[in-house]
Amino acid sequence: MLIDQMTTLSGEAAVKARKAREASASLGLLDERQKNEALMAMAEELEREHAAIIEANREDLEAGRQNGLSASLLDRLALDRKRIAGIAEGLRQIAALPDPVGEVLEHAVRPNGLRIVKKRVPLGVIGIIYEARPNVTVDAAGLCLKTGNAVVLRGGSAAIRSNMRIVGVLRQALAKTAVPPEAVQLIEDTSRASADDMLKLNGLLDVLIPRGGAGLIRHVVENATVPVIETGAGICHTYLDEYADPAMAESIAINAKVQRPSVCNAMETLLVHEAFAARHLAGLLDKFRELGVEIRGCARTRELAPWAKEATDADYATEYNDYILNVRVVPDLEEAIRHIARFGTKHSECIVTEDAGRAERFLCEVDAAAVYHNASTRFTDGFEFGYGAEIGISTQKLHARGPMGLAALTSTKTFVYGNGQIRT
Amino acid sequence: MLIDQMTTLSGEAAVKARKAREASASLGLLDERQKNEALMAMAEELEREHAAIIEANREDLEAGRQNGLSASLLDRLALDRKRIAGIAEGLRQIAALPDPVGEVLEHAVRPNGLRIVKKRVPLGVIGIIYEARPNVTVDAAGLCLKTGNAVVLRGGSAAIRSNMRIVGVLRQALAKTAVPPEAVQLIEDTSRASADDMLKLNGLLDVLIPRGGAGLIRHVVENATVPVIETGAGICHTYLDEYADPAMAESIAINAKVQRPSVCNAMETLLVHEAFAARHLAGLLDKFRELGVEIRGCARTRELAPWAKEATDADYATEYNDYILNVRVVPDLEEAIRHIARFGTKHSECIVTEDAGRAERFLCEVDAAAVYHNASTRFTDGFEFGYGAEIGISTQKLHARGPMGLAALTSTKTFVYGNGQIRT
Repeated sequence: MLIDQMTTLSGEAAVKARKAREASASLGLLDERQKNEALMAMAEELEREHAAIIEANREDLEAGRQNGLSASLLDRLALDRKRIAGIAEGLRQIAALPDPVGEVLEHAVRPNGLRIVKKRVPLGVIGIIYEARPNVTVDAAGLCLKTGNAVVLRGGSAAIRSNMRIVGVLRQALAKTAVPPEAVQLIEDTSRASADDMLKLNGLLDVLIPRGGAGLIRHVVENATVPVIETGAGICHTYLDEYADPAMAESIAINAKVQRPSVCNAMETLLVHEAFAARHLAGLLDKFRELGVEIRGCARTRELAPWAKEATDADYATEYNDYILNVRVVPDLEEAIRHIARFGTKHSECIVTEDAGRAERFLCEVDAAAVYHNASTRFTDGFEFGYGAEIGISTQKLHARGPMGLAALTSTKTFVYGNGQIRT
Repeated sequence: MLIDQMTTLSGEAAVKARKAREASASLGLLDERQKNEALMAMAEELEREHAAIIEANREDLEAGRQNGLSASLLDRLALDRKRIAGIAEGLRQIAALPDPVGEVLEHAVRPNGLRIVKKRVPLGVIGIIYEARPNVTVDAAGLCLKTGNAVVLRGGSAAIRSNMRIVGVLRQALAKTAVPPEAVQLIEDTSRASADDMLKLNGLLDVLIPRGGAGLIRHVVENATVPVIETGAGICHTYLDEYADPAMAESIAINAKVQRPSVCNAMETLLVHEAFAARHLAGLLDKFRELGVEIRGCARTRELAPWAKEATDADYATEYNDYILNVRVVPDLEEAIRHIARFGTKHSECIVTEDAGRAERFLCEVDAAAVYHNASTRFTDGFEFGYGAEIGISTQKLHARGPMGLAALTSTKTFVYGNGQIRT
């Protein structure tokens, strides 16, 4: 009995997961109004306690500076009154979204009279393992509570003081509502061991969602026995077809690379049909250069831009998340599709073309969570897709694929109503 | 790059998974008619080649007898002309089902004009690890092909000659159709090592579905890095409430236990409200005794049936799949729910009562894939739920929960149509 074995584990992760599991039983029975009141109370308490949160955050920042955190990491970690207000506003937006729990997905009356009703229910207890950003603590708690789930949060060490204070404030708010404060748990031990403990808590955690760098995600996928939703890795391509509109091609390619290079839906490799390349690639490469983008190119690309470095297979297989771009000229659509099959991470892939038939072929044949015709891959995002919120972007094919909104945090349960039916 | 690393693996599992992956690219593009023609051709070829299949099966049976397989295992392994006709008929039924691939699940036009269409697509390559029954080989191949998936089958050693012949026949049939024969792969090495190789083929396999005993499933869950859909374990309870109709209670309890004790949706533990027990339990226990069911009971049960053995916590935590039943008298509905939370495997749970309020409370509070009011748990089955087919019963909460029909073998893909949209 896995669950019974679990009750004897005494590490922090097991103890807190067990508390979350107990809280989840009542949480799943709450109605939408009760959950929304809790989200609003959390938002209010965060703003009221802003000074204490900023004080804890200052300690994290000080420690981070002593530990040599980069300026960009320090910026992601930093909280001020305006950022806290933004985080609180996020909770209010989650409250305003429709609650997926209870939605009837199937309803059938069988020939024997059995009435079969499949409804959305909470997953139960969700474990989230993430890195530095303290806003994830609040977002994840809010999304989980909205969907009736308890949550076990395990953030990174750099933000631990901020996270402890934030979770304290959230639980303080919940104490005044119908949601049990134990529904939000924070693992305070930020050693590797505490995260590793979480990976094996089958029966206590229903799913683990790792959010962070490729190393973290790979470690979780390779070691977890709890079901995992893999998120994040994005080697996204934009293919400029022979029949691409040159102005649109340039606009989409530049947006996909430089509008925010650090995120998973940004472009890492530009594939260009040789006919389009002959006419337009040199100019486009110059624009990238002006924008400060380092180019690593194939032989043909380097004929057009002798200042570019040479692209290796290792480059094509790298998610830079930076101002670096691979550029490869391909002889045809087929080779573009083959390149993506080899190097893509099945996240977001785009074709720019005025030829609808070639576009549809690309969209059907490329295997990815999101495939684009004539739009930037940067739109792969829960808000942009209209889900109103996002817990992450799934790069696996099970359960949820692509941006995960509230529905991705639910499971189903089948209610069967009979009047004495037995199986013959 | 996980996929590139994979191309260097040379074991049978990796080589065959790679062939399946290559086949899956074209398979996912076939239309419903082409896939149905392939299923019909497979059915026809199985019947035409029945003699060769029966001959191979005879060798398996002979080896099984020498290896001391039990009579019931030998029976599950055995094929004759009638069973082969039944298996072929199963393929024709799969052909007759609607194809979920291509179904539009979401369709939205965003304020910026982006048209976002989420459709069902095949998962890609499905690995199935199973034990003795050769009919699973055909069922699994049929369900996977219908949904546009390639499949890597890894059956048990006891059926290997039958499976090799069957897969040979299926591929022979596929050679005459639009489905590439490489879409169906059988691992011929039935050592533990070949199954273990499959568990780590991330990038080549999209999902693993283990079908078999608890030991097999646990091994796969604990060791796989490929996403797994856990199936099978069922410690199912029936709770006879104070307000149960006595005749209905008896009929449902007996059906849930003895109609087919060897399957996962059969009852393992009967919970009885003490008021109902005082009036009706002694008679019901006598009936179970007459039906050859061994009773393991709580103290109160043994007062009513002194011939019963004592039930331990280990018994409550055991899936017997046999003519053995735990019986426990409980003081109230709450204790029944608590017992199920402690010992249940979240498969199928039933309350028998005439009180609709108590029924709804049980259905909402018990955490299981299927919850029943006044019907036997034996109905948790893809056919009984109206799905027309079943690849297994998921006992996890991700992706699919409960009986898995064709839709459970699909993922989604979002097609985004723009006219130059970029993110600002």
